[in-house]
Amino acid sequence: LIAVDWGTSNFRAFRLDKDGKILERRFHPGGILRVEGGRFAEMLLAQVGDWLDDGEDRILLCGMIGSRQGWIEASYIPCPARIADIAAAVVRAPFERADVLLVPGVIGKDRSGVPEVMRGEETEAFGMMELCGPDGLICLPGTHSKWIQMRDSAIASFNTWMTGEVFAALRNGTILGRLMTSEGAVDNDTFLRGVNRSAETGGILHHLFGVRTLGLLHHLEEQNAASYLSGLLIGHEVRAAMPAGTHVHLAGATQVRSLYALAIEACGGFCAIEEGDVAVRGLTAIGRKLSWI
Amino acid sequence: LIAVDWGTSNFRAFRLDKDGKILERRFHPGGILRVEGGRFAEMLLAQVGDWLDDGEDRILLCGMIGSRQGWIEASYIPCPARIADIAAAVVRAPFERADVLLVPGVIGKDRSGVPEVMRGEETEAFGMMELCGPDGLICLPGTHSKWIQMRDSAIASFNTWMTGEVFAALRNGTILGRLMTSEGAVDNDTFLRGVNRSAETGGILHHLFGVRTLGLLHHLEEQNAASYLSGLLIGHEVRAAMPAGTHVHLAGATQVRSLYALAIEACGGFCAIEEGDVAVRGLTAIGRKLSWI
Repeated sequence: LIAVDWGTSNFRAFRLDKDGKILERRFHPGGILRVEGGRFAEMLLAQVGDWLDDGEDRILLCGMIGSRQGWIEASYIPCPARIADIAAAVVRAPFERADVLLVPGVIGKDRSGVPEVMRGEETEAFGMMELCGPDGLICLPGTHSKWIQMRDSAIASFNTWMTGEVFAALRNGTILGRLMTSEGAVDNDTFLRGVNRSAETGGILHHLFGVRTLGLLHHLEEQNAASYLSGLLIGHEVRAAMPAGTHVHLAGATQVRSLYALAIEACGGFCAIEEGDVAVRGLTAIGRKLSWI
Repeated sequence: LIAVDWGTSNFRAFRLDKDGKILERRFHPGGILRVEGGRFAEMLLAQVGDWLDDGEDRILLCGMIGSRQGWIEASYIPCPARIADIAAAVVRAPFERADVLLVPGVIGKDRSGVPEVMRGEETEAFGMMELCGPDGLICLPGTHSKWIQMRDSAIASFNTWMTGEVFAALRNGTILGRLMTSEGAVDNDTFLRGVNRSAETGGILHHLFGVRTLGLLHHLEEQNAASYLSGLLIGHEVRAAMPAGTHVHLAGATQVRSLYALAIEACGGFCAIEEGDVAVRGLTAIGRKLSWI
């Protein structure tokens, strides 16, 4: 089985043996936004053609490749979604050299009835089930952070926070960014000051102005302003997403994951970190349901 | 008296008679950011030189012209700030042809002890006192909205929300902006949907993703997405700034003011709109305290 996590910005392919062990991997910055004229088949062949020559004939794809902007649209399946529901709804893409199947996204509603969608994170959530068991709250931080409630081995519900994208927009497009001199590492103490600030009254739109006034009055060093802003936004997300005292299962890239772990603990939660590649693990699990592995 | 409101983006000058009546006005897009090399005196002379020729010899300036980036820094005075405190703290700028005084800004703290500053809005607040009397809650919407609590004829406290600037940054720098096709007028019904959404759980960072999903699922028309986003952000501001049932005194540019009036009423407040030029009225009041008028 060849497992591929193909998102907006990146292409990551894995050659797996019959036990789901990773034999080889390929990385390419060819996310779907960079593939011109719908030439997804050509791009896939260029990346994994030698594995096909070597006998592989099954490819399972997850991520934005299954969206309207991707290769072929794999419609969202509704919550509660089990791994069997996902496996039953995969969509075939036209490809001569192998069987190619696309994993569908999942659609749900928030507590107020507003729609929620995801594509790629459902696979990561199933990849994390081994860690968190059939029930648990999963946090997948990122540009659009997802908090996924697993219940009885199904994705029961999930919610999105646009934290990463809003951070970038504020940094690039407001007076706050002009204060931020450093691209350096996050200062954890300042990050936690931001997280603690998020508990106070006034809301984000008010708290943001404090980034400016604290700098103006020399209560916040310029090189730490980005750390404070990051803590402020992630703090608001975590407080809204997580009831205090909750156990959270956390995955994601190392740096952002460690910030979320700090914030979750500062907001009264408990955190278990999944270090492995949860997308590959999820694709393996879906592959098993398809009897492809 | 020549009264000048000189902010970051604009220069507005008014020639007043002894009763504070406006005789003539000048507008120039020469905010302090566009004045190069500190040539503020030259710019002022170019704008109002003919009034000086005509006998005027006193100029009172308010706004960012008194900031560190402006002509001469007029230090912030602390809350509670009365009009007499402001008048006692004006700063003289070097200018041959007339006496030039700069109005200081005001500094305070929010309920959590984080600093607040303003420069220009204190003058507008004193200009509104005739409307709201010695006590009242004033809302001055804009790039950085100010909510100012007047008590016993003083600025008792105030808070800032970065609503206007965040709206622009989200529109220009996130996926939400790419959905927004129209630069057209705000649709009031959609604006109010956004205001109502701001009352629901999850916070702004979550509600923002709804702009995307509602569009994706055709529950929100592209040409109305900006109206919804505007309602969402202004709704969050108003709910945080205003206890329900409060009477609010509102000024500002016509379009933004009418949106805030809608939001204040939708959030359970009552709204009195000040149609006049509150900056000029405030400069007149400070001029009187200086016995300049």
